Amino acid sequence: MITSPTLQIDTKQCSENINKMVEKCRANNAIFRPHFKTHQSARIASLFKTVGVDKITVSSVRMAQYFAKRGWSNITIAFPFNVLEKDKLMLFPKNTQLNLLVNNTQQVTAIKQTVNFKVNILIEIDVDYARSGVHFTKTDEINELLNEISSSSNLNFQGFLSHFGNSYSARGVDEIRSIYEKGRSAMLRLKSEFILEYPDLIVSIGDTPCCSVIERFDGIDEIRPGNFVYYDLMQWQIGSCGLDEIACKVQCIIVSKYPERNEVIIYGGAVHFSKEQLMTESYGKIYGLLLPKSNQQSKNEKFQGHLTKLSQEHGTLKVDKEFIDSCEIGDLVSILPIHSCLTANLLLDETDFT
Amino acid sequence: MITSPTLQIDTKQCSENINKMVEKCRANNAIFRPHFKTHQSARIASLFKTVGVDKITVSSVRMAQYFAKRGWSNITIAFPFNVLEKDKLMLFPKNTQLNLLVNNTQQVTAIKQTVNFKVNILIEIDVDYARSGVHFTKTDEINELLNEISSSSNLNFQGFLSHFGNSYSARGVDEIRSIYEKGRSAMLRLKSEFILEYPDLIVSIGDTPCCSVIERFDGIDEIRPGNFVYYDLMQWQIGSCGLDEIACKVQCIIVSKYPERNEVIIYGGAVHFSKEQLMTESYGKIYGLLLPKSNQQSKNEKFQGHLTKLSQEHGTLKVDKEFIDSCEIGDLVSILPIHSCLTANLLLDETDFT
Repeated sequence: MITSPTLQIDTKQCSENINKMVEKCRANNAIFRPHFKTHQSARIASLFKTVGVDKITVSSVRMAQYFAKRGWSNITIAFPFNVLEKDKLMLFPKNTQLNLLVNNTQQVTAIKQTVNFKVNILIEIDVDYARSGVHFTKTDEINELLNEISSSSNLNFQGFLSHFGNSYSARGVDEIRSIYEKGRSAMLRLKSEFILEYPDLIVSIGDTPCCSVIERFDGIDEIRPGNFVYYDLMQWQIGSCGLDEIACKVQCIIVSKYPERNEVIIYGGAVHFSKEQLMTESYGKIYGLLLPKSNQQSKNEKFQGHLTKLSQEHGTLKVDKEFIDSCEIGDLVSILPIHSCLTANLLLDETDFT
Repeated sequence: MITSPTLQIDTKQCSENINKMVEKCRANNAIFRPHFKTHQSARIASLFKTVGVDKITVSSVRMAQYFAKRGWSNITIAFPFNVLEKDKLMLFPKNTQLNLLVNNTQQVTAIKQTVNFKVNILIEIDVDYARSGVHFTKTDEINELLNEISSSSNLNFQGFLSHFGNSYSARGVDEIRSIYEKGRSAMLRLKSEFILEYPDLIVSIGDTPCCSVIERFDGIDEIRPGNFVYYDLMQWQIGSCGLDEIACKVQCIIVSKYPERNEVIIYGGAVHFSKEQLMTESYGKIYGLLLPKSNQQSKNEKFQGHLTKLSQEHGTLKVDKEFIDSCEIGDLVSILPIHSCLTANLLLDETDFT
């Protein structure tokens, strides 16, 4: 029985989201290496295992250790290698194939000086998202990295990895497509430049908007979406998913009612949702949307309320008259979160799988 | 040795912040009941114990249980009582004096029907912050609550509690003072109205901006600030503290360098800082400020960089030329967080006390 804020996961919907991505990868003959940073959950991981997934992505050494201990043996840490954690590389089960991401030679050197086993190295490429990675035009830097990689027999150059993160600013399928095409052509240009020397190199891309919307990944060898397993309001606004594909919601409790302000106060705040916000046309800035009370599963576009403010534990929910007239102190309400990765991270120990 | 994002607490500064508040309470003959939601830490709690604090505030039943197990026996749960958690009231050590907050009769009824021991009840009052609480003008509602409270011999009306949360929108001491005076006069009006019938009633207020800035709490019986133990950039911007009073910083690791963009990418993201943001005149929207490398303790107003973006694990730090020329991959950087309560909540297991 739910008595405090709880993330509720619809595992049937998760499986549908997973199956769709698996099918797409099969049709494209692409490796499916889902990012596990969204759920960080052994339970959700098992849904992937059931459909034959055996390669995964994580965003920290700690997460890699968590899943390695649970039998996952082919793990890409898709975060610029943190040289201060190099000694932790020695603590993985012997059968773990680690694939590490680098964008500067110091990282390669640190890995080389540490490991006494084979690791794959991916070079991180920036295709104008301008977060991390070597810009795709800087072939000199790439060659420098390849030289350092080839100086150790324990290091194997696996390929180029990129995150087309600017797809998060896209609105609608056309904008996502155009970001994808730009990124893809940059990555394929690199691939063609280096494939003769490295015939096994792969090109790996990863964001949920592109992976959800694009049907044909010509020339792309691997995809690493993560968020798609739960989706959220941010992805809905981008155009990556329908509301009915969102597999998570946060159950909160009504603790105060203010009919004259059309507001209820819920137990459910920044330590449950995170403070990720979304600008919407209909409601302005929101922290979440209230699912209809009568049929919380229907997820149509009619919402009875939206979260306008979050304190540490309180949420302020602006609601319509129909809702406030029928709700009671102690009622559970279901809220769609803005960013499921951050919400799931906060509610890892308060998750309910249905 | 720090190898991943870590909250570093300067316990000497914490003690100074605590002592200042203790002295102020002594001078005012007010009860000091610090809010423990900011630190949620047994270690920091012990600093309060050392100076004689024995009454505390928390914001959830779970937090109350955590501190009750560690010997704290007088606990106010300063959150509108969640009726779904009523059975948990029976799980506290027998010597625990619980003080519960209510703003509607359903809550009082639920408590009454559950407990077989004495609990104190505080009525939550809204003095125009408009989050939760009975508006201070609604004496009918207050009387209704008092009737329900007096119908059980286990419930004792303790007094009126308010959070002057609009002090968080204040900028500078004058604005804080004016919010305080408005709130105080509303609370004292209530006190005078009910003191004859309830001669032991207390008035409890709580926000860090008011408690930091106001010197004389005439008529206020109890204060419950929490954030002041660490402070943060938000409090600095409000005018509650100086930079040198901030007792926390997040240690992060440089994982990529982009001199042409004046940016470094750090291991330190939304799952470490939270996505609390601050609008500043000098830098626009920020998620944190970089302390000077040369003397991280000095905390003057010269910053070498600011966090402009946060992904789940990455932070984008805009830095000056001097910094980028001297920093290296793998260097630790110290970042002042925007909202220490949320950052501390995320880094509870990765906190380093110095």
